[in-house]
Amino acid sequence: MNNPFMTPDELEQALRKIGAERYHRNHPFHHAMTDGKLTKGQIQAWALNRYCYQAAIPIKDAYILARMPTIEGRKEWRRRIVDHDGDEKSAGGIERWLKLTTSLGLEREYVISMEGALPITRFSVESYINYVREKPLLLAIASSLTELFSPDIISSRVEGMLKHYDFITQESLAYFTPRLTQAPKDSAFALDYVKKHAITADQQQAVLSALRFKCDVLWSMLDALDYSYSTPSHLPPGAFVPR
Amino acid sequence: MNNPFMTPDELEQALRKIGAERYHRNHPFHHAMTDGKLTKGQIQAWALNRYCYQAAIPIKDAYILARMPTIEGRKEWRRRIVDHDGDEKSAGGIERWLKLTTSLGLEREYVISMEGALPITRFSVESYINYVREKPLLLAIASSLTELFSPDIISSRVEGMLKHYDFITQESLAYFTPRLTQAPKDSAFALDYVKKHAITADQQQAVLSALRFKCDVLWSMLDALDYSYSTPSHLPPGAFVPR
Repeated sequence: MNNPFMTPDELEQALRKIGAERYHRNHPFHHAMTDGKLTKGQIQAWALNRYCYQAAIPIKDAYILARMPTIEGRKEWRRRIVDHDGDEKSAGGIERWLKLTTSLGLEREYVISMEGALPITRFSVESYINYVREKPLLLAIASSLTELFSPDIISSRVEGMLKHYDFITQESLAYFTPRLTQAPKDSAFALDYVKKHAITADQQQAVLSALRFKCDVLWSMLDALDYSYSTPSHLPPGAFVPR
Repeated sequence: MNNPFMTPDELEQALRKIGAERYHRNHPFHHAMTDGKLTKGQIQAWALNRYCYQAAIPIKDAYILARMPTIEGRKEWRRRIVDHDGDEKSAGGIERWLKLTTSLGLEREYVISMEGALPITRFSVESYINYVREKPLLLAIASSLTELFSPDIISSRVEGMLKHYDFITQESLAYFTPRLTQAPKDSAFALDYVKKHAITADQQQAVLSALRFKCDVLWSMLDALDYSYSTPSHLPPGAFVPR
Protein backbone atom coordinates (compact mmCIF):
# COMPACT_ATOMS: atom_id res chain seq x y z
CA MET A 1 0.00 0.00 0.00
CA ASN A 2 1.44 3.33 -1.04
CA ASN A 3 0.84 6.18 1.30
CA PRO A 4 0.32 9.55 -0.37
CA PHE A 5 2.61 12.42 0.48
CA MET A 6 0.93 14.84 2.86
CA THR A 7 1.36 18.57 3.12
CA PRO A 8 3.05 19.57 6.41
CA ASP A 9 -0.31 20.65 7.78
CA GLU A 10 -1.92 17.36 6.85
CA LEU A 11 0.92 15.61 8.65
CA GLU A 12 0.19 17.71 11.72
CA GLN A 13 -3.47 16.75 11.52
CA ALA A 14 -2.54 13.08 11.26
CA LEU A 15 -0.31 13.45 14.33
CA ARG A 16 -3.10 15.14 16.28
CA LYS A 17 -5.48 12.36 15.29
CA ILE A 18 -3.13 9.78 16.78
CA GLY A 19 -3.02 11.80 19.98
CA ALA A 20 -6.80 11.99 20.12
CA GLU A 21 -7.02 8.22 19.79
CA ARG A 22 -3.98 6.87 21.60
CA TYR A 23 -2.72 9.38 24.13
CA HIS A 24 -3.03 8.03 27.68
CA ARG A 25 -5.64 10.65 28.49
CA ASN A 26 -8.03 7.97 27.20
CA HIS A 27 -6.75 5.31 29.60
CA PRO A 28 -9.16 3.93 32.23
CA PHE A 29 -6.54 4.48 34.95
CA HIS A 30 -6.33 8.17 34.08
CA HIS A 31 -10.10 8.46 34.23
CA ALA A 32 -10.17 6.68 37.58
CA MET A 33 -7.53 9.09 38.87
CA THR A 34 -9.31 12.27 37.82
CA ASP A 35 -12.68 10.91 38.95
CA GLY A 36 -11.39 10.38 42.47
CA LYS A 37 -11.65 6.59 42.28
CA LEU A 38 -8.10 5.68 43.24
CA THR A 39 -6.81 4.83 46.70
CA LYS A 40 -3.84 6.62 48.17
CA GLY A 41 -1.83 3.45 47.60
CA GLN A 42 -2.67 3.50 43.90
CA ILE A 43 -1.63 7.15 43.63
CA GLN A 44 1.60 6.37 45.48
CA ALA A 45 2.26 3.54 43.03
CA TRP A 46 1.56 5.85 40.09
CA ALA A 47 3.93 8.55 41.36
CA LEU A 48 6.62 6.01 42.23
CA ASN A 49 6.49 4.35 38.81
CA ARG A 50 6.16 7.58 36.91
CA TYR A 51 9.38 8.70 38.60
CA CYS A 52 11.24 6.16 36.43
CA TYR A 53 9.89 7.90 33.36
CA GLN A 54 10.73 11.37 34.69
CA ALA A 55 14.26 10.26 35.52
CA ALA A 56 14.72 8.96 31.97
CA ILE A 57 13.72 12.18 30.21
CA PRO A 58 17.08 14.02 30.39
CA ILE A 59 18.80 10.80 29.36
CA LYS A 60 16.73 10.39 26.22
CA ASP A 61 17.08 14.12 25.57
CA ALA A 62 20.86 13.81 25.85
CA TYR A 63 20.81 11.16 23.10
CA ILE A 64 18.94 13.63 20.90
CA LEU A 65 21.28 16.47 21.89
CA ALA A 66 24.26 14.32 20.92
CA ARG A 67 22.92 13.94 17.41
CA MET A 68 21.64 17.45 16.77
CA PRO A 69 23.90 18.84 14.04
CA THR A 70 23.28 22.57 14.68
CA ILE A 71 24.11 24.87 17.59
CA GLU A 72 20.58 26.23 17.46
CA GLY A 73 19.07 22.76 17.68
CA ARG A 74 21.40 21.78 20.51
CA LYS A 75 20.56 24.92 22.49
CA GLU A 76 16.88 24.17 22.08
CA TRP A 77 17.34 20.62 23.25
CA ARG A 78 19.70 21.59 26.06
CA ARG A 79 16.92 23.73 27.50
CA ARG A 80 14.86 20.57 27.94
CA ILE A 81 17.61 18.99 30.00
CA VAL A 82 17.81 22.12 32.16
CA ASP A 83 14.04 21.98 32.63
CA HIS A 84 14.33 18.47 34.03
CA ASP A 85 17.66 18.56 35.82
CA GLY A 86 17.48 22.19 37.04
CA ASP A 87 20.15 24.90 37.32
CA GLU A 88 21.44 27.39 39.91
CA LYS A 89 18.16 29.31 39.70
CA SER A 90 15.66 26.55 40.14
CA ALA A 91 15.20 22.89 40.84
CA GLY A 92 14.28 20.86 37.81
CA GLY A 93 11.33 18.65 37.02
CA ILE A 94 12.85 15.52 38.54
CA GLU A 95 13.33 17.29 41.87
CA ARG A 96 9.78 18.61 41.71
CA TRP A 97 8.54 15.10 41.03
CA LEU A 98 10.30 13.97 44.19
CA LYS A 99 8.35 16.64 46.06
CA LEU A 100 5.22 14.87 44.95
CA THR A 101 6.42 11.41 45.98
CA THR A 102 7.65 12.76 49.32
CA SER A 103 4.36 14.50 49.98
CA LEU A 104 2.67 11.16 49.32
CA GLY A 105 4.72 9.61 52.12
CA LEU A 106 7.27 7.75 49.99
CA GLU A 107 10.89 7.77 51.06
CA ARG A 108 13.06 9.77 48.71
CA GLU A 109 15.86 7.18 48.56
CA TYR A 110 13.40 4.38 47.91
CA VAL A 111 11.86 6.28 45.01
CA ILE A 112 15.24 7.15 43.50
CA SER A 113 16.40 3.52 43.80
CA MET A 114 13.45 2.49 41.55
CA GLU A 115 13.52 -0.80 43.45
CA GLY A 116 9.78 -0.94 43.92
CA ALA A 117 8.91 0.00 40.34
CA LEU A 118 6.94 -2.47 38.25
CA PRO A 119 9.00 -4.44 35.73
CA ILE A 120 6.67 -3.23 32.99
CA THR A 121 7.53 0.36 33.90
CA ARG A 122 11.21 -0.44 33.52
CA PHE A 123 10.71 -2.23 30.21
CA SER A 124 8.57 0.57 28.78
CA VAL A 125 11.00 3.30 29.79
CA GLU A 126 13.97 1.29 28.55
CA SER A 127 12.26 0.78 25.22
CA TYR A 128 11.69 4.53 24.95
CA ILE A 129 15.35 5.33 25.65
CA ASN A 130 16.49 2.71 23.14
CA TYR A 131 14.11 4.02 20.54
CA VAL A 132 15.49 7.53 20.87
CA ARG A 133 19.06 6.26 20.82
CA GLU A 134 18.72 3.93 17.85
CA LYS A 135 16.18 5.42 15.46
CA PRO A 136 16.95 8.24 13.02
CA LEU A 137 16.99 11.69 14.62
CA LEU A 138 13.75 12.63 12.87
CA LEU A 139 11.93 9.78 14.62
CA ALA A 140 13.61 10.39 17.97
CA ILE A 141 12.27 13.94 17.81
CA ALA A 142 8.87 12.79 16.58
CA SER A 143 8.56 10.49 19.58
CA SER A 144 8.61 13.57 21.83
CA LEU A 145 5.41 14.85 20.25
CA THR A 146 3.19 13.45 22.97
CA GLU A 147 3.98 16.83 24.51
CA LEU A 148 1.49 18.31 22.06
CA PHE A 149 -1.18 16.72 24.21
CA SER A 150 0.25 17.06 27.69
CA PRO A 151 -1.06 20.51 28.74
CA ASP A 152 -4.54 19.11 28.35
CA ILE A 153 -3.95 15.98 30.44
CA ILE A 154 -2.09 18.00 33.07
CA SER A 155 -5.02 20.36 33.53
CA SER A 156 -7.50 17.54 33.98
CA ARG A 157 -5.12 15.64 36.26
CA VAL A 158 -4.37 18.60 38.54
CA GLU A 159 -7.99 19.66 38.72
CA GLY A 160 -9.24 16.14 39.39
CA MET A 161 -6.61 15.36 41.99
CA LEU A 162 -7.09 18.60 43.95
CA LYS A 163 -10.82 18.08 43.94
CA HIS A 164 -10.95 14.45 45.01
CA TYR A 165 -7.96 13.60 47.21
CA ASP A 166 -7.42 15.38 50.52
CA PHE A 167 -3.78 14.18 50.67
CA ILE A 168 -2.98 16.12 47.47
CA THR A 169 -2.14 19.82 47.70
CA GLN A 170 -1.37 22.50 45.14
CA GLU A 171 2.19 22.48 46.46
CA SER A 172 2.70 18.74 46.02
CA LEU A 173 1.65 19.16 42.39
CA ALA A 174 4.35 21.82 41.77
CA TYR A 175 5.82 19.61 39.05
CA PHE A 176 2.99 20.35 36.71
CA THR A 177 2.76 24.15 36.72
CA PRO A 178 5.96 24.89 34.74
CA ARG A 179 5.14 22.03 32.38
CA LEU A 180 2.10 23.96 31.20
CA THR A 181 4.42 26.52 29.59
CA GLN A 182 7.47 24.31 28.92
CA ALA A 183 5.66 21.58 27.01
CA PRO A 184 4.05 23.88 24.39
CA LYS A 185 7.43 25.54 23.76
CA ASP A 186 9.09 22.13 23.37
CA SER A 187 6.41 20.64 21.19
CA ALA A 188 6.23 23.73 18.94
CA PHE A 189 9.91 23.29 18.08
CA ALA A 190 9.60 19.52 17.62
CA LEU A 191 6.46 19.78 15.51
CA ASP A 192 8.06 22.40 13.31
CA TYR A 193 11.18 20.23 12.94
CA VAL A 194 9.16 17.18 11.99
CA LYS A 195 7.00 19.09 9.51
CA LYS A 196 10.13 20.45 7.83
CA HIS A 197 12.23 17.30 7.80
CA ALA A 198 9.72 14.58 6.94
CA ILE A 199 10.05 15.14 3.20
CA THR A 200 8.98 11.78 1.83
CA ALA A 201 5.78 9.83 2.29
CA ASP A 202 7.79 7.05 3.96
CA GLN A 203 9.33 9.47 6.42
CA GLN A 204 5.90 10.85 7.21
CA GLN A 205 4.60 7.35 7.93
CA ALA A 206 7.62 6.67 10.11
CA VAL A 207 6.94 9.88 12.04
CA LEU A 208 3.38 8.74 12.67
CA SER A 209 4.70 5.37 13.86
CA ALA A 210 7.09 7.14 16.22
CA LEU A 211 4.22 8.95 17.88
CA ARG A 212 2.17 5.76 18.06
CA PHE A 213 5.12 4.01 19.68
CA LYS A 214 5.48 6.75 22.28
CA CYS A 215 1.75 6.65 23.04
CA ASP A 216 2.18 2.90 23.58
CA VAL A 217 4.94 3.57 26.12
CA LEU A 218 2.76 5.87 28.20
CA TRP A 219 -0.30 3.68 27.80
CA SER A 220 1.52 0.52 28.86
CA MET A 221 2.71 2.17 32.06
CA LEU A 222 -0.91 2.81 33.03
CA ASP A 223 -1.93 -0.72 31.99
CA ALA A 224 0.61 -2.08 34.45
CA LEU A 225 -0.49 0.21 37.28
CA ASP A 226 -4.15 -0.52 36.70
CA TYR A 227 -3.52 -4.25 36.66
CA SER A 228 -1.05 -4.57 39.49
CA TYR A 229 -2.73 -2.24 41.97
CA SER A 230 -6.35 -3.19 41.41
CA THR A 231 -6.17 -6.52 43.23
CA PRO A 232 -3.56 -7.70 45.77
CA SER A 233 -3.12 -11.02 43.92
CA HIS A 234 -1.99 -9.10 40.83
CA LEU A 235 0.99 -7.49 42.50
CA PRO A 236 4.17 -8.83 40.90
CA PRO A 237 6.96 -10.17 43.15
CA GLY A 238 9.18 -7.40 44.48
CA ALA A 239 6.98 -4.43 43.60
CA PHE A 240 6.02 -1.61 45.97
CA VAL A 241 3.34 -2.70 48.41
CA PRO A 242 1.06 0.09 49.68
CA ARG A 243 0.55 -0.04 53.43
CA MET B 1 25.41 -5.20 52.87
CA ASN B 2 28.01 -7.81 52.04
CA ASN B 3 26.72 -11.00 50.58
CA PRO B 4 28.59 -14.14 51.61
CA PHE B 5 30.15 -16.34 48.98
CA MET B 6 28.06 -19.43 48.36
CA THR B 7 29.18 -22.87 47.37
CA PRO B 8 28.06 -23.77 43.83
CA ASP B 9 25.31 -25.95 45.30
CA GLU B 10 24.10 -23.14 47.53
CA LEU B 11 23.97 -20.91 44.46
CA GLU B 12 21.84 -23.52 42.73
CA GLN B 13 19.51 -23.63 45.70
CA ALA B 14 19.21 -19.84 45.67
CA LEU B 15 18.38 -19.96 41.95
CA ARG B 16 15.74 -22.63 42.53
CA LYS B 17 14.22 -20.55 45.30
CA ILE B 18 13.82 -17.61 42.91
CA GLY B 19 12.09 -19.93 40.47
CA ALA B 20 9.74 -21.20 43.16
CA GLU B 21 8.78 -17.63 44.04
CA ARG B 22 8.89 -15.73 40.77
CA TYR B 23 8.47 -18.09 37.84
CA HIS B 24 5.28 -17.36 35.92
CA ARG B 25 3.85 -20.69 36.97
CA ASN B 26 2.57 -18.66 39.95
CA HIS B 27 0.82 -16.09 37.78
CA PRO B 28 -2.99 -15.82 38.02
CA PHE B 29 -3.27 -15.94 34.21
CA HIS B 30 -1.44 -19.28 34.14
CA HIS B 31 -3.76 -20.65 36.80
CA ALA B 32 -6.79 -19.41 34.90
CA MET B 33 -5.46 -21.12 31.78
CA THR B 34 -4.85 -24.50 33.36
CA ASP B 35 -8.13 -24.34 35.30
CA GLY B 36 -10.11 -23.92 32.10
CA LYS B 37 -11.21 -20.38 32.90
CA LEU B 38 -10.02 -18.62 29.77
CA THR B 39 -12.05 -17.90 26.67
CA LYS B 40 -10.83 -18.95 23.26
CA GLY B 41 -10.10 -15.28 22.54
CA GLN B 42 -7.84 -15.10 25.59
CA ILE B 43 -5.97 -18.22 24.52
CA GLN B 44 -5.61 -16.81 21.02
CA ALA B 45 -4.19 -13.61 22.51
CA TRP B 46 -1.78 -15.61 24.65
CA ALA B 47 -0.52 -17.68 21.70
CA LEU B 48 -0.25 -14.60 19.48
CA ASN B 49 1.73 -12.61 22.04
CA ARG B 50 3.87 -15.52 23.10
CA TYR B 51 4.87 -15.90 19.45
CA CYS B 52 6.89 -12.66 19.82
CA TYR B 53 8.84 -14.30 22.62
CA GLN B 54 9.35 -17.53 20.66
CA ALA B 55 10.57 -15.59 17.64
CA ALA B 56 13.11 -13.75 19.80
CA ILE B 57 14.73 -16.86 21.27
CA PRO B 58 17.13 -17.67 18.40
CA ILE B 59 18.05 -13.99 18.23
CA LYS B 60 19.01 -13.78 21.88
CA ASP B 61 20.77 -17.14 21.56
CA ALA B 62 22.75 -15.79 18.62
CA TYR B 63 24.01 -12.96 20.82
CA ILE B 64 25.22 -15.53 23.31
CA LEU B 65 26.69 -17.69 20.55
CA ALA B 66 28.63 -14.68 19.25
CA ARG B 67 30.31 -14.23 22.59
CA MET B 68 31.02 -17.86 23.50
CA PRO B 69 34.80 -18.18 23.42
CA THR B 70 35.02 -21.98 22.97
CA ILE B 71 34.01 -24.31 20.15
CA GLU B 72 32.35 -26.58 22.68
CA GLY B 73 30.29 -23.73 24.11
CA ARG B 74 29.30 -22.51 20.65
CA LYS B 75 28.23 -26.00 19.57
CA GLU B 76 26.09 -26.27 22.66
CA TRP B 77 24.48 -22.93 22.03
CA ARG B 78 24.12 -23.56 18.30
CA ARG B 79 21.96 -26.55 19.15
CA ARG B 80 19.49 -24.20 20.80
CA ILE B 81 19.18 -22.19 17.62
CA VAL B 82 18.58 -25.38 15.64
CA ASP B 83 15.90 -26.40 18.15
CA HIS B 84 14.03 -23.16 17.49
CA ASP B 85 14.75 -22.52 13.81
CA GLY B 86 14.77 -26.18 12.67
CA ASP B 87 16.94 -28.04 10.16
CA GLU B 88 16.53 -30.37 7.17
CA LYS B 89 15.24 -33.12 9.47
CA SER B 90 12.61 -31.28 11.41
CA ALA B 91 10.78 -28.01 11.78
CA GLY B 92 11.88 -25.95 14.73
CA GLY B 93 10.05 -24.57 17.73
CA ILE B 94 8.94 -21.37 16.01
CA GLU B 95 7.29 -23.34 13.23
CA ARG B 96 5.64 -25.59 15.80
CA TRP B 97 4.38 -22.52 17.64
CA LEU B 98 2.77 -21.36 14.40
CA LYS B 99 0.97 -24.71 14.27
CA LEU B 100 -0.61 -23.77 17.55
CA THR B 101 -1.63 -20.27 16.45
CA THR B 102 -2.99 -21.64 13.16
CA SER B 103 -4.98 -24.34 14.95
CA LEU B 104 -6.47 -21.54 17.07
CA GLY B 105 -7.74 -19.86 13.91
CA LEU B 106 -5.14 -17.10 13.66
CA GLU B 107 -3.74 -16.22 10.26
CA ARG B 108 -0.11 -17.20 9.93
CA GLU B 109 0.96 -13.93 8.29
CA TYR B 110 -0.82 -11.88 10.91
CA VAL B 111 0.92 -13.74 13.73
CA ILE B 112 4.34 -13.40 12.09
CA SER B 113 3.80 -9.67 11.51
CA MET B 114 3.38 -9.22 15.30
CA GLU B 115 1.07 -6.34 14.44
CA GLY B 116 -1.58 -7.33 16.93
CA ALA B 117 0.81 -8.00 19.80
CA LEU B 118 0.49 -5.95 22.95
CA PRO B 119 3.03 -3.15 23.34
CA ILE B 120 4.02 -4.61 26.72
CA THR B 121 4.87 -7.88 25.01
CA ARG B 122 7.17 -6.03 22.62
CA PHE B 123 8.81 -4.03 25.40
CA SER B 124 9.38 -7.12 27.56
CA VAL B 125 10.87 -9.16 24.74
CA GLU B 126 13.02 -6.23 23.60
CA SER B 127 14.31 -5.80 27.12
CA TYR B 128 15.24 -9.49 27.23
CA ILE B 129 17.16 -9.29 23.96
CA ASN B 130 18.97 -6.14 25.09
CA TYR B 131 19.83 -7.73 28.40
CA VAL B 132 21.43 -10.71 26.70
CA ARG B 133 23.27 -8.49 24.24
CA GLU B 134 24.61 -5.97 26.74
CA LYS B 135 25.26 -7.80 29.99
CA PRO B 136 28.33 -9.94 30.66
CA LEU B 137 28.16 -13.42 29.13
CA LEU B 138 27.76 -15.01 32.57
CA LEU B 139 24.54 -13.05 33.14
CA ALA B 140 23.25 -13.59 29.62
CA ILE B 141 23.57 -17.32 30.26
CA ALA B 142 22.09 -17.04 33.74
CA SER B 143 19.02 -15.33 32.31
CA SER B 144 18.26 -18.54 30.39
CA LEU B 145 17.85 -20.46 33.64
CA THR B 146 14.09 -20.12 33.69
CA GLU B 147 14.38 -23.30 31.64
CA LEU B 148 15.11 -25.09 34.90
CA PHE B 149 11.45 -24.63 35.69
CA SER B 150 9.83 -25.00 32.30
CA PRO B 151 9.23 -28.78 32.12
CA ASP B 152 7.01 -28.40 35.14
CA ILE B 153 4.92 -25.53 33.75
CA ILE B 154 4.68 -27.25 30.37
CA SER B 155 3.23 -30.40 31.93
CA SER B 156 0.59 -28.48 33.84
CA ARG B 157 -0.21 -26.30 30.84
CA VAL B 158 -0.59 -29.20 28.39
CA GLU B 159 -2.63 -31.26 30.82
CA GLY B 160 -4.89 -28.35 31.77
CA MET B 161 -5.43 -27.22 28.21
CA LEU B 162 -6.25 -30.68 26.85
CA LYS B 163 -8.67 -31.26 29.70
CA HIS B 164 -10.58 -27.98 29.56
CA TYR B 165 -10.64 -26.63 26.01
CA ASP B 166 -12.26 -28.59 23.21
CA PHE B 167 -10.50 -26.44 20.58
CA ILE B 168 -7.10 -27.63 21.81
CA THR B 169 -5.70 -30.92 20.55
CA GLN B 170 -2.57 -32.91 21.28
CA GLU B 171 -1.41 -32.04 17.78
CA SER B 172 -1.81 -28.31 18.21
CA LEU B 173 0.37 -28.52 21.31
CA ALA B 174 3.21 -30.20 19.37
CA TYR B 175 5.49 -27.33 20.35
CA PHE B 176 5.72 -28.52 23.90
CA THR B 177 6.66 -32.19 23.55
CA PRO B 178 10.27 -31.73 22.39
CA ARG B 179 10.72 -28.93 24.92
CA LEU B 180 10.31 -31.48 27.70
CA THR B 181 13.63 -33.05 26.70
CA GLN B 182 15.36 -29.99 25.16
CA ALA B 183 14.89 -27.66 28.12
CA PRO B 184 16.51 -29.95 30.73
CA LYS B 185 19.52 -30.49 28.43
CA ASP B 186 19.84 -26.74 27.88
CA SER B 187 19.41 -25.79 31.49
CA ALA B 188 21.83 -28.47 32.70
CA PHE B 189 24.59 -26.90 30.59
CA ALA B 190 23.68 -23.36 31.62
CA LEU B 191 23.42 -24.22 35.30
CA ASP B 192 26.77 -25.96 35.21
CA TYR B 193 28.30 -22.96 33.42
CA VAL B 194 26.93 -20.52 35.95
CA LYS B 195 28.01 -22.62 38.94
CA LYS B 196 31.54 -22.81 37.54
CA HIS B 197 31.94 -19.20 36.39
CA ALA B 198 30.29 -17.22 39.19
CA ILE B 199 33.43 -17.17 41.31
CA THR B 200 32.84 -14.10 43.45
CA ALA B 201 30.00 -13.20 45.79
CA ASP B 202 29.18 -10.21 43.56
CA GLN B 203 28.97 -12.40 40.48
CA GLN B 204 26.70 -14.79 42.34
CA GLN B 205 24.38 -11.94 43.30
CA ALA B 206 24.41 -10.72 39.71
CA VAL B 207 23.48 -14.22 38.54
CA LEU B 208 20.52 -14.24 40.91
CA SER B 209 19.47 -10.82 39.59
CA ALA B 210 19.68 -12.12 36.04
CA LEU B 211 17.22 -14.88 36.84
CA ARG B 212 14.93 -12.44 38.68
CA PHE B 213 15.02 -10.17 35.64
CA LYS B 214 14.07 -13.02 33.34
CA CYS B 215 11.24 -14.08 35.60
CA ASP B 216 10.02 -10.46 35.41
CA VAL B 217 10.00 -10.65 31.61
CA LEU B 218 7.79 -13.74 31.56
CA TRP B 219 5.60 -12.47 34.40
CA SER B 220 5.02 -9.09 32.74
CA MET B 221 3.84 -10.74 29.55
CA LEU B 222 1.11 -12.51 31.52
CA ASP B 223 0.25 -9.31 33.42
CA ALA B 224 -0.41 -7.60 30.10
CA LEU B 225 -2.53 -10.47 28.76
CA ASP B 226 -4.53 -10.76 31.97
CA TYR B 227 -5.19 -7.01 32.01
CA SER B 228 -5.88 -6.39 28.35
CA TYR B 229 -8.06 -9.40 27.67
CA SER B 230 -10.13 -9.49 30.85
CA THR B 231 -12.33 -6.48 29.95
CA PRO B 232 -12.94 -4.97 26.50
CA SER B 233 -12.26 -1.45 27.82
CA HIS B 234 -8.73 -2.54 28.77
CA LEU B 235 -7.70 -3.44 25.25
CA PRO B 236 -4.98 -1.05 24.11
CA PRO B 237 -5.35 0.72 20.76
CA GLY B 238 -4.19 -1.45 17.85
CA ALA B 239 -4.03 -4.78 19.67
CA PHE B 240 -5.56 -8.04 18.45
CA VAL B 241 -9.31 -8.10 19.00
CA PRO B 242 -10.82 -11.57 19.47
CA ARG B 243 -13.97 -12.09 17.39
